[in-house]
Amino acid sequence: MSDKKRILVINPNASTRVTQVIDRELNAIRKQTSFTIDVCDHPSAPPGIARQQDADMVAPLVQQTIRRERASAYVVACFSDPGLTGAREEAKGSLVLGCGESAILHALTVGDQFGIISLSDLSTLRQRRMVRMMGLTSRYAGSAAISATAEEATSPLLIEKMVDAGRALASGGANVILMGCAGMAHFRSSLEDRLGMPVIDPTSSAVAMALGLCTLRESRLNESDP
Amino acid sequence: MSDKKRILVINPNASTRVTQVIDRELNAIRKQTSFTIDVCDHPSAPPGIARQQDADMVAPLVQQTIRRERASAYVVACFSDPGLTGAREEAKGSLVLGCGESAILHALTVGDQFGIISLSDLSTLRQRRMVRMMGLTSRYAGSAAISATAEEATSPLLIEKMVDAGRALASGGANVILMGCAGMAHFRSSLEDRLGMPVIDPTSSAVAMALGLCTLRESRLNESDP
Amino acid sequence: MSDKKRILVINPNASTRVTQVIDRELNAIRKQTSFTIDVCDHPSAPPGIARQQDADMVAPLVQQTIRRERASAYVVACFSDPGLTGAREEAKGSLVLGCGESAILHALTVGDQFGIISLSDLSTLRQRRMVRMMGLTSRYAGSAAISATAEEATSPLLIEKMVDAGRALASGGANVILMGCAGMAHFRSSLEDRLGMPVIDPTSSAVAMALGLCTLRESRLNESDP
Amino acid sequence: MSDKKRILVINPNASTRVTQVIDRELNAIRKQTSFTIDVCDHPSAPPGIARQQDADMVAPLVQQTIRRERASAYVVACFSDPGLTGAREEAKGSLVLGCGESAILHALTVGDQFGIISLSDLSTLRQRRMVRMMGLTSRYAGSAAISATAEEATSPLLIEKMVDAGRALASGGANVILMGCAGMAHFRSSLEDRLGMPVIDPTSSAVAMALGLCTLRESRLNESDP
Amino acid sequence: MSDKKRILVINPNASTRVTQVIDRELNAIRKQTSFTIDVCDHPSAPPGIARQQDADMVAPLVQQTIRRERASAYVVACFSDPGLTGAREEAKGSLVLGCGESAILHALTVGDQFGIISLSDLSTLRQRRMVRMMGLTSRYAGSAAISATAEEATSPLLIEKMVDAGRALASGGANVILMGCAGMAHFRSSLEDRLGMPVIDPTSSAVAMALGLCTLRESRLNESDP
Amino acid sequence: MSDKKRILVINPNASTRVTQVIDRELNAIRKQTSFTIDVCDHPSAPPGIARQQDADMVAPLVQQTIRRERASAYVVACFSDPGLTGAREEAKGSLVLGCGESAILHALTVGDQFGIISLSDLSTLRQRRMVRMMGLTSRYAGSAAISATAEEATSPLLIEKMVDAGRALASGGANVILMGCAGMAHFRSSLEDRLGMPVIDPTSSAVAMALGLCTLRESRLNESDP
Repeated sequence: MSDKKRILVINPNASTRVTQVIDRELNAIRKQTSFTIDVCDHPSAPPGIARQQDADMVAPLVQQTIRRERASAYVVACFSDPGLTGAREEAKGSLVLGCGESAILHALTVGDQFGIISLSDLSTLRQRRMVRMMGLTSRYAGSAAISATAEEATSPLLIEKMVDAGRALASGGANVILMGCAGMAHFRSSLEDRLGMPVIDPTSSAVAMALGLCTLRESRLNESDP
Repeated sequence: MSDKKRILVINPNASTRVTQVIDRELNAIRKQTSFTIDVCDHPSAPPGIARQQDADMVAPLVQQTIRRERASAYVVACFSDPGLTGAREEAKGSLVLGCGESAILHALTVGDQFGIISLSDLSTLRQRRMVRMMGLTSRYAGSAAISATAEEATSPLLIEKMVDAGRALASGGANVILMGCAGMAHFRSSLEDRLGMPVIDPTSSAVAMALGLCTLRESRLNESDP
Repeated sequence: MSDKKRILVINPNASTRVTQVIDRELNAIRKQTSFTIDVCDHPSAPPGIARQQDADMVAPLVQQTIRRERASAYVVACFSDPGLTGAREEAKGSLVLGCGESAILHALTVGDQFGIISLSDLSTLRQRRMVRMMGLTSRYAGSAAISATAEEATSPLLIEKMVDAGRALASGGANVILMGCAGMAHFRSSLEDRLGMPVIDPTSSAVAMALGLCTLRESRLNESDP
Repeated sequence: MSDKKRILVINPNASTRVTQVIDRELNAIRKQTSFTIDVCDHPSAPPGIARQQDADMVAPLVQQTIRRERASAYVVACFSDPGLTGAREEAKGSLVLGCGESAILHALTVGDQFGIISLSDLSTLRQRRMVRMMGLTSRYAGSAAISATAEEATSPLLIEKMVDAGRALASGGANVILMGCAGMAHFRSSLEDRLGMPVIDPTSSAVAMALGLCTLRESRLNESDP
Repeated sequence: MSDKKRILVINPNASTRVTQVIDRELNAIRKQTSFTIDVCDHPSAPPGIARQQDADMVAPLVQQTIRRERASAYVVACFSDPGLTGAREEAKGSLVLGCGESAILHALTVGDQFGIISLSDLSTLRQRRMVRMMGLTSRYAGSAAISATAEEATSPLLIEKMVDAGRALASGGANVILMGCAGMAHFRSSLEDRLGMPVIDPTSSAVAMALGLCTLRESRLNESDP
Repeated sequence: MSDKKRILVINPNASTRVTQVIDRELNAIRKQTSFTIDVCDHPSAPPGIARQQDADMVAPLVQQTIRRERASAYVVACFSDPGLTGAREEAKGSLVLGCGESAILHALTVGDQFGIISLSDLSTLRQRRMVRMMGLTSRYAGSAAISATAEEATSPLLIEKMVDAGRALASGGANVILMGCAGMAHFRSSLEDRLGMPVIDPTSSAVAMALGLCTLRESRLNESDP
């Protein structure tokens, strides 16, 4: 059945511009895989996850989507991973990945200490809590904020702010940079060139990890078939 | 105005039995203070916060209550502190305390390593995440589950399970025991006697801390009055 | 008996100017409570706790005072909390709070990472050891010294140095500032205005916590009375 | 060119039995992917990586293989990841994954605390050092040894020892179990059934992660083509 | 001058039996060095450092001895290292070593995780605080108490309790055992035989480290002489 | 036999200039001891340990030297301590010290937080991994690179770069500075004068510790002789 090879990327906010950025950036990876990769958003959610309250509000929405939609894997496409742990609790049988968690795990294979370009100081606080909860403080060089909303991050005009933030993180010890918002995806390649160090787009990391782990699961399901 | 001296204790689940246990246990402290201490619950919430999903669902409800009700301080009366951080983000001017966080901070002044009696293994996982997020792993001796719901915890029959869990935690290094559910409040005194070590009821700790900090704030507001 | 509702604040150095600052700052809180709040100092102690040796010298003096004086709660009014742990060992029945520990615990409910304005580089070293011993390194943004003695800290002239230190801590990640000396209490309000972020006076935090926890204990003693 | 879609799994010891176990277990995953997955070993290496000295001896051998062979990704198929960091230093352009690191990162998405079934107490010490170096102590429930060599681990007779070790880890707080040797791969499914909790085979995790990340890289290389 | 080659071992309690055990155990090392090694105690101190209060009381006494006596190096011969940090603050020019700190640093070169045989549960709490303050929690397997005073530890009858404690620590992950009291020195050799793993006597470690570091300093002083 | 009183210092690279610097700096300490202190190097090793791959390559060479040569103690004279853990595994009976580990342990007795002057950014990464593996992150103020090879570090011209690096570390919280390469030994005294804080040469620390611990071991071997 087709939902066996479907990855559903959930943008947990209501910004269609963010959804479009995510969707467009996934085209390249779609060409390389037989998995269907869909992106959805939440019209009733706030336009961006600016505050912890926003993350709190959308967590149940993310979980509802997962209950309602069929897929081999779900990717929560907001760096704060709203609803991730609760979603896993429920759907033991299916794979749920957060783009914040995936990007951080990916970074651990690429560099020694990671830094995160965050939208705002409030996002920075959320990222610190996430890193402490993951138990990874000693690998975290910090976050640097560009003072933008998720929607604004879709504009190409922010590149200079991104570069400044990346350099500040590098001088603080980071040797791999994470973009702290799914809507920043389009900056990855030019940012990597400008900074001269690896830059990670969280949604790509989560989708890549989903592709790998779904392939592994498919292989096991096939084995146990008669 | 009376809401200047009101502490609102929010039981974020729908169990009126849990609300009654909390309310009754606060009678003694009410006699010692001029603050009004009210307790409310959430009829539309689940009967207990068993899973992370339940905590996720009630976090926005807790924040709604805080927006709607006037009080000097709000106490979230569930050990998982659902919605706490987000509530603080919003209401910079008012005091919001979580009973999990308050109990842990209180414990740090009483013993070297704290252990938590949890309702279930799922609660244990939530507590571990909370302790890591607070950055307090090195003071945490662990959690021991009694395999009960929040409602069942209101029954006096669970005392033996509580004692067993407390002893397991003590042999693992704890020298102060936290009850990991607001509905366990009625066990505190007898558990302390049985275990021979301090036992902390989270709601009491949070209300005590609220009384102290509200008094401090009142004193400052009065000072700055003409 | 009146000592049941008495909080004794122990300035463990010999500086009467520091004692006066502490005492005066407590007037506002005295108006809000039925507890008696007394402040004492130690004529035979050094004029300030500048070095670890000073803290070592006054630790037994603090413990003697606690043995000699009756009170519901004792507050050690020096950020280094000299003698705190030993005092607790002895007087299991009474409450002993340190102003350093209390301020740090209070800060955890207010911000994500706390920074401390310290008197000197030697104080900074003591604070780092204290934070490590408390197990709270991951919540600590560091200390910034103003190069002053405890007595000098009572002078209003230091405000600019305090502001500079606070800003340095903020740029290092702190979103709540602790004043690292009881004698700095009079700066709290203006420093908070200048920095635009919460500033914590350690003695106030300890007294507030003492008020809350003593009220809780009174309520329990009354309950168990026939 | 075919080496663009080749994953080379390097068994860094000389045991062909271990190589065969690894190779056979990869058949299922080979059916699900267009990548070629090859397995090689090192005839001049010791029969197993029992001691740190063995890991030290094979680290340069692993790096030689990577220099000599062309592949999209290299997987070091020994839980100790000998030579991993050095190999990455050299081949910035190609992907090198360790099966120990990959298994641990995979585990972080599956459970709260992971436990490792190790071959011996010496392996346990290596795993502890690895976990500390990764900065993940607070997510590590410990290792439990079955007192076997890598070759012996290929025998089905060890299942009961594996189950005992897994249960010991679970009672110590693990809710996901890692098999600490590539030669244990054939136990995964039955061990998962017996323990009732997720069991991770390190080589499978590393290959899955390699598939995902190689797909991501292919997509980017294609994009930048004219 | 002879005090240039003198190591003064300060037993900070009043027990001459403990002083004698320390002194006798140092005879073997005296035969191997040209340094004079003296041992003194404090008649006005308590008979043992059982509580934190005892450590607090003797800290200034230790510092007085160091100010009064001339030596190349001072060794504080109580596992709690009372007064160590303060003594170093003062005597920048001379070497002060604590036997607790030295034993722990020595252990880090011998094993992966160290365990401490402590006199009592109160000592265990002091050791935990010390290990946290040193920042070494992740190398610490814990402490196991034998419920004895420092004087009782000089009796050969305690060997079985010592063996039991050592085995408990080994099963908790320790692969090197520290004796947590200077008065236990005479047990080292037989305990090592019984446990089959390295056992460290804290005073010996501190004296060995003092011999090495004093030799280094002598060599530098000689170099800078005309 | 003379090898009972011999310390063999192993420079694990092929640079005779580095070997000469090490050898010359040990002359002063040789005058103070009856131990023979020899220095050797590895003609087949790379000229310096610049990359992790270099450390990986020489680890087995260091272990071969230890198997081949007789000595009371072996000192690995490269800050990365290549082969240290594996060498200890083998030669349980003899003492193997690393100069990186020894310098760090020495620093813990001298200051609160240590900083390391490293040769290059790649060395910095190795030092971070070492510090995490040792479990000492909370005592580590960081590394500052001077962008030089081990051979270049033997030139007196680098002193200004060393001073700059030392000052950067001090402003980041270090109050003791470690020289991160054995070839920097000749800078110690002038660097200490310029920085006004203690500076540690790693080889000296390791040799001093070896002298102390060998003396302790000799004393025990003599005791157990009939």
